[in-house]
Amino acid sequence: MRPLALAGMGSFTAGGRKVRVEGEAVETISFSAGFRDYAYNPNGEFWIEQSYVQFFIPQEKQFPLPVLLVHGGGLTGSCWETTPDGRLGWQESLLRRGVATYTIDMVERGRAGFSSLPGIWQGRPLQRSAEEAWALFRVGTRSDFASRKTFEGTQFPVEAFDELMRWAVPRWLTNTEAQVAALVEAVRKIGPCYLIGHSQGGGHALVAAEREPELVRACVVLEPHGAPTQFEQAASRPVLLVQGDFLDFDDVWKGLVRNADESLNAWRRGGGVTDVLDLPSLGLRGNSHMLMMDRNSETVLDLVMDWLVRIDVYQWKQEDRT
Amino acid sequence: MRPLALAGMGSFTAGGRKVRVEGEAVETISFSAGFRDYAYNPNGEFWIEQSYVQFFIPQEKQFPLPVLLVHGGGLTGSCWETTPDGRLGWQESLLRRGVATYTIDMVERGRAGFSSLPGIWQGRPLQRSAEEAWALFRVGTRSDFASRKTFEGTQFPVEAFDELMRWAVPRWLTNTEAQVAALVEAVRKIGPCYLIGHSQGGGHALVAAEREPELVRACVVLEPHGAPTQFEQAASRPVLLVQGDFLDFDDVWKGLVRNADESLNAWRRGGGVTDVLDLPSLGLRGNSHMLMMDRNSETVLDLVMDWLVRIDVYQWKQEDRT
Repeated sequence: MRPLALAGMGSFTAGGRKVRVEGEAVETISFSAGFRDYAYNPNGEFWIEQSYVQFFIPQEKQFPLPVLLVHGGGLTGSCWETTPDGRLGWQESLLRRGVATYTIDMVERGRAGFSSLPGIWQGRPLQRSAEEAWALFRVGTRSDFASRKTFEGTQFPVEAFDELMRWAVPRWLTNTEAQVAALVEAVRKIGPCYLIGHSQGGGHALVAAEREPELVRACVVLEPHGAPTQFEQAASRPVLLVQGDFLDFDDVWKGLVRNADESLNAWRRGGGVTDVLDLPSLGLRGNSHMLMMDRNSETVLDLVMDWLVRIDVYQWKQEDRT
Repeated sequence: MRPLALAGMGSFTAGGRKVRVEGEAVETISFSAGFRDYAYNPNGEFWIEQSYVQFFIPQEKQFPLPVLLVHGGGLTGSCWETTPDGRLGWQESLLRRGVATYTIDMVERGRAGFSSLPGIWQGRPLQRSAEEAWALFRVGTRSDFASRKTFEGTQFPVEAFDELMRWAVPRWLTNTEAQVAALVEAVRKIGPCYLIGHSQGGGHALVAAEREPELVRACVVLEPHGAPTQFEQAASRPVLLVQGDFLDFDDVWKGLVRNADESLNAWRRGGGVTDVLDLPSLGLRGNSHMLMMDRNSETVLDLVMDWLVRIDVYQWKQEDRT
């Protein structure tokens, strides 16, 4: 592969809040054999609920605005990197197409960190089993997990399913607002940009776009969930919904498709514009929920970029360039 | 800054194990407003205790072996990226010096993920307060945190202390062996390499070097802790200990320095070679525990690289090149 020339790379945090813990007992702990009997004081000031953003700026930008990649539930920003079977992920592919990328780890996930402070977060973190992931990501039915029998013609690189499971992280069910708030702060630090959000990250992307319509110039939502069914200021912003295959297989996915449709209807009622990239109806069969990792991930990204280029040419005429 | 040409980038996981949860009750949960009443089944197969490794390969290598960067306790691989005050971190600086970098997130930290499964891990995760970090990282005394009065001449970018606190993540005290095991697996995937480890990561680096003396060709340990005081197969491998300033300020650091000395003595008894880069005795005053983030971080890295080049020239004559 040809070299990739970067003008810059790095990371920063966005959002978060300071909390104070008081009245907890000091405890004697050991960090290691040589670092024993340390008086751990759990009281004091802590930062929680920030997001982590890693960015890469290509030397030769072919595209005026950067893309912010927003991962889904139970995963981190690593889902945009090397695919589970070792191919080029969307993050590097975007860079090689001349697009600056910002990849977020949302609150509680990955390098954003989570809070283990007493009494601050509600509930407990849940971890997704391989069986649940197999079914919910539409690689196959839950009962076929043991035999690894997939849906016919799946595009998911099934031989690398275990690698995907090693990317999984626990999730709380109660941090949606904190996640969206820190995503919006990330957008404010980045400036005008496009969001590409997957699953829970697709829902969060639309909420962020509603809160910062001047900055979020378009959203690509890959099988989103969690988006509202009311928007007030979609402000003519375009949204592309991307959907894979096997969506009518069970009631969970039928419901998620219906909810995504309702969100897009609400986006239009709020003044926005929507497009749908239904991959099977374009003849692209076999895509799982993990569209950016499927064997045809580059073809899916080609289609997404075709759309973003059209959007961009339109916006080029309308907006300031950054 | 001049462009940075990469031959490749990406990430992978290393190590980990599969566990099975059985006999837990199915629970009805809501992922979002549009994804309600989902039957969450906590039973099944899970992957835990893997490490996450992100790598960057420069187009023009000036240095034959890659460096694996091993973060300390309560942090993630992000500690090697942009410094808290926005300067070049060691990861990018190494790349710009022609060194391939692998950056690990150790078990339970960052993108490696943690386990929230019932009954698998012992104990609970602890979070470090800003007050404790201020003192333990030797920016100033705990009692001076409120006024932000630092040790005189500190090199830590104190105006960015809050940003460092937003990088902090909780830690368990009980996962040392799992962390080392997944670090060793990372080394096996990378092949011959040098380790640069900070704090807890410095201790882990020496243990990994003992387990894979053919692959770990040298270690640079920045104020390490947790290294053993017995080594059997240091195999002539060189170790560089790097220490900052204010180490005689309190008993915690006096003890940690003594333990680091004991580990290095043990390394020599085990057949290894050691060097010490005591920064104050070289006239470099004011370094905190966060040597790679201090204002003179590039000067410290210059010294580390001078040492690695000498080691490398020596090893060049002795070993196969990769």
